[in-house]
Amino acid sequence: MTTDIDAVLDYVDAQLDASLARLFEFIRIPSISTDPAYADDCRRAAQWLSSQLGDLGFDASVRDTTGHPMVVAHGEAVAGPHVLFYGHYDVQPVDPLALWATPPFEPSLSPQPDGETHILGRGASDDKGQLLTFIEACRAFKAVTGKLPIRISMLFEGEEEAGSPSLGPFLEATAEELRADTILVCDTDMWDRDTPAITTMWRGLVGEEIEITAADRDLHSGMFGNAARNALQVLGTIVGRLRNDDGSVAIPGFYDGVTELPDAIKAQWQRLPFDAEKFLADIGLSIPAGESGRSVLEQIWARPTCEINGMIGGYTGEGFKTVIPAKASAKISFRLVAGQDPARIRESFRAFVSSLVPADCSVRLTAHGTAPAEMMPLDGVLLNQARLALGEEWNREAALAGTGGSIPILGEFKRRLGMDSLLIGFARFDNRIHSPNEKYDLTSFHKGIRSWVRILAAFAQ
Amino acid sequence: MTTDIDAVLDYVDAQLDASLARLFEFIRIPSISTDPAYADDCRRAAQWLSSQLGDLGFDASVRDTTGHPMVVAHGEAVAGPHVLFYGHYDVQPVDPLALWATPPFEPSLSPQPDGETHILGRGASDDKGQLLTFIEACRAFKAVTGKLPIRISMLFEGEEEAGSPSLGPFLEATAEELRADTILVCDTDMWDRDTPAITTMWRGLVGEEIEITAADRDLHSGMFGNAARNALQVLGTIVGRLRNDDGSVAIPGFYDGVTELPDAIKAQWQRLPFDAEKFLADIGLSIPAGESGRSVLEQIWARPTCEINGMIGGYTGEGFKTVIPAKASAKISFRLVAGQDPARIRESFRAFVSSLVPADCSVRLTAHGTAPAEMMPLDGVLLNQARLALGEEWNREAALAGTGGSIPILGEFKRRLGMDSLLIGFARFDNRIHSPNEKYDLTSFHKGIRSWVRILAAFAQ
Repeated sequence: MTTDIDAVLDYVDAQLDASLARLFEFIRIPSISTDPAYADDCRRAAQWLSSQLGDLGFDASVRDTTGHPMVVAHGEAVAGPHVLFYGHYDVQPVDPLALWATPPFEPSLSPQPDGETHILGRGASDDKGQLLTFIEACRAFKAVTGKLPIRISMLFEGEEEAGSPSLGPFLEATAEELRADTILVCDTDMWDRDTPAITTMWRGLVGEEIEITAADRDLHSGMFGNAARNALQVLGTIVGRLRNDDGSVAIPGFYDGVTELPDAIKAQWQRLPFDAEKFLADIGLSIPAGESGRSVLEQIWARPTCEINGMIGGYTGEGFKTVIPAKASAKISFRLVAGQDPARIRESFRAFVSSLVPADCSVRLTAHGTAPAEMMPLDGVLLNQARLALGEEWNREAALAGTGGSIPILGEFKRRLGMDSLLIGFARFDNRIHSPNEKYDLTSFHKGIRSWVRILAAFAQ
Repeated sequence: MTTDIDAVLDYVDAQLDASLARLFEFIRIPSISTDPAYADDCRRAAQWLSSQLGDLGFDASVRDTTGHPMVVAHGEAVAGPHVLFYGHYDVQPVDPLALWATPPFEPSLSPQPDGETHILGRGASDDKGQLLTFIEACRAFKAVTGKLPIRISMLFEGEEEAGSPSLGPFLEATAEELRADTILVCDTDMWDRDTPAITTMWRGLVGEEIEITAADRDLHSGMFGNAARNALQVLGTIVGRLRNDDGSVAIPGFYDGVTELPDAIKAQWQRLPFDAEKFLADIGLSIPAGESGRSVLEQIWARPTCEINGMIGGYTGEGFKTVIPAKASAKISFRLVAGQDPARIRESFRAFVSSLVPADCSVRLTAHGTAPAEMMPLDGVLLNQARLALGEEWNREAALAGTGGSIPILGEFKRRLGMDSLLIGFARFDNRIHSPNEKYDLTSFHKGIRSWVRILAAFAQ
C-alpha cells in the first residue's frame, strides 16, 4: 500500500493546476443560497458537482427538495469502513460589494510576500475549496489505482448558509441510503498554518428576526415627536438590553444547562500555541467582548453568544430625514454550546423581547435556522487513524479543537442515525469567509488534498 | 377698501382652477433637497417661482448659494407696513415609494366621502400648496386693483428639509435687502379643520449621525462571536439608553434651561378642542410615549424630544447572514424648546455617546441641521390684525398655538435682524407630510388664499 500512497500523492502534486482549474470553474457559479435571485445558480452548482462525481465513476445524482437540491453520490462497494463525506456547495452573500478588491465570482490567484498564494473568490474557502480537497483526493486514487481505497458516499447540500431547512426532511427520507460508519466533513480550520486540527465540538445556532411596528405609518418628528412611540427606539432598547455590562447575555435562563469544559480539553488548549492578543489585533480589536474572566478561546468555542447580525429602520439614505419610523427590524442569532436546548433558547428570547414591547406596539418574530451544539467522543479508531495521517502530512501532532460555528446537519446525523463526525479542515483563521475578499491558501488546497489521500489510505489499513 | 376686498375675494373664487393648475405644475417638479440626484429639479423649482413672481410684477431673481438656490422677490414700494414672506420650495424624500397610492410627483384631485377634495402629491401641503396661497393672494390683488396692498418682499429657500445650511450665510449677506417689519410664514397647521391658528412657538432641531466602527471588517459570528465586539450591539446599547423608562431623555443636562409653559398658553390650550386619545388613535397608537405626567400637547409642542430617525448595520437583505457587523450607523435628532442651547445639547449628546463606546471601537459623529427653538411675543399690532382677519374668514377666533416642528430660519431672522414672525398656515394634522400619500385639502388651499387677502387688507388699514 505504501507504494500506492506515494504514487497517489505524486499524482496530486503533478495535477495541481488541473485541480485548481476545476475549483475556479466551481467558484464562478454564484450559488448564494439566501437570495432567491440565485436559485438557478444553486442548481447549476449542484449539477456541476454531480457531473464531476459521475465522471469519477460515482453513482451521482441531483435530488430535488423544496429548497435548493441535494447531491448524493456513492462509490463502488469495496472493503474497509464506509464513510459519508458531507459538504455544501452554497455560499454567503457578497455585500458590501464595494469592499471586494476583485469580483467575488471571478476567482484569481494572488501571490503573497510570504511566498503563499491566495485563491481569491466567494466560496474559495467556505466551502467550495475545502470540499474539493476531498473530491480531488478521490480523483487521484481513481487515476492511479483505478479504484477508491474504501467505500465512500457523499452528500452535498445547498442551504448550509441559510440554516439547512431541507436537510432534516431529506435525511429522514434517505436515512438507510446514507447510513455509514462515520461522517467526514471538510469545513473547518487548521489550528494554525502549521498545525492540523480535528474539530470535536461546535456551537449550535438559533436565528430570529424581529419586526417592531409602532404607528401605522412613518411620522413627522416635529408634529408627533415625543408622543408617538418610535419603532427604532423600541428595537434599540431591546437590542441594548441583550447583554449585561460584564459581557454576559441578559436573557433569563440563557445559561441553563451550560457546563464547564472537560479538563482534558482545557489542558490541551493551554498547551497549544494561541495568541489571544494577536487574534483580536488581526481584526482591529483589543478587548474580548464576551463574559469577563473567560479566555478568548473559551468565549468563541465553549461559551454561547448572542449577535445582532443586521438591523434597519427609518431613513437610511443620503442626508437626513426627521421621520419617526413606524417599523424597525433586526436579525439576531445565538451560537449555543452543548447542553443548551435551541427550542428553549428561542422561547426565552421571545419572552424577553415581548416583555419590552409597549402595549400599543406589535412585534412579529420569525424563526430562522436552528442547530444544536455537539461535542464528539475523543476515543474512536477512525479519529486516531486520522490524527496520525494528518501528523505525517504536516509533521505536527493534530490538535483536538473546537469551533464557534455551527454545522447544523451533524447533530441531526448523530441523533437520527447514531453517526459521529470527523471534522477535518484546512482553512485558516484569516480566510475572511462570510466577508469581502474571501481567500483560500494554495497550501491549504494542495496539502488538503494530500491529507485526505493519507487519511483514506489509513482507513483502508 | 371694503369693495376692493370683496372684489379680490370674488376673483380668488373665480380663478381657483387656474390657481390649482399652477400648484400642480409646481408639485410636478421633484425638488427633493436631501438627495443630490435632485439638484437640477431644485433649481427648476426656484426658477419656476421666480418666473411666476416676475410675471406678477415683482423684481424677482434666483440667487446661487453653495447649496440649492434662493429666490428673492420685491414688490413695488407702497404705503403701510413692509412684510417679508418666507417659504421653501424643497420637499421631503418619498420613500417608501411602494406605500404611495398615486405617484408622488403626479398631483391629482381625490374627492372624499365628506365632501372635501384632497390635492395629492409630495409637497401638496409642505410647503408648495401652503406658500402658493400667499402668492395667489398677491396675484388676486394685482389683477383686481393693479397693485399690492402693502409693501411685500419674499424669500424662498430650497434646503428647509435639509436643515437650511445655506440660509445663515445668505441672510448675513442680504440682511439690509431683506429687513422688513415682520416675517410672514405659511408652513403650519390650523388648530382643527374649522379653527384657524397663529403659531407662536416652535421647537428647535439638532441632527446628528453616529457611525460606530468595531472590527476592521465584517466577521463570521461562528468564528468570532462573543470575543469580537458587535457594532450593532454597541449602537443598540447607545440607542436603548437614550430614554429612561418614564419617557424622559436620559442624556445628562438635557433639560437644563427648560421652563414651564406660561399660564396664559396653558389656559388657552385647555379651552381649545383637542382629543389626545383620537390624536394617537389616528396614527394607530394609544399610549403617549413622552414624559409621563405631561399632556400630549405639552409633549409635542412644549417639551423636547429625542428621536431615532434611521438606523442601519449588518445584513438587511433577504434571508439570514450570521455576520458580526463591523459598522453600524444611526441618524438621531432632537426637537428642542425655548431655553435649550442647541450647541450644548449636541455637546452633551456627543459626550453621552462617547461614554458608551468601548475603548477599542471608534465613533464618527456628523452634525446635521441645527435650529433654535423660539417663543414669539403675544401682543403685537400685526398679530392682532391677523387674528381678526382670520376670524372673519373662518367665523372662529384664531388660536395661538405651538408647533413641534422647527422653522430654522425664523430664529436667525430674530437674532440677526430683530424681526418677529407670524406663522399662519392652513394645513391639517392628517396631511401626511413627510409620509407617503401627502395631501392638502382643497378647502385649505382656497380659504388659505382668501385668508391672506383679508390679512393683507387688514395690514393696509
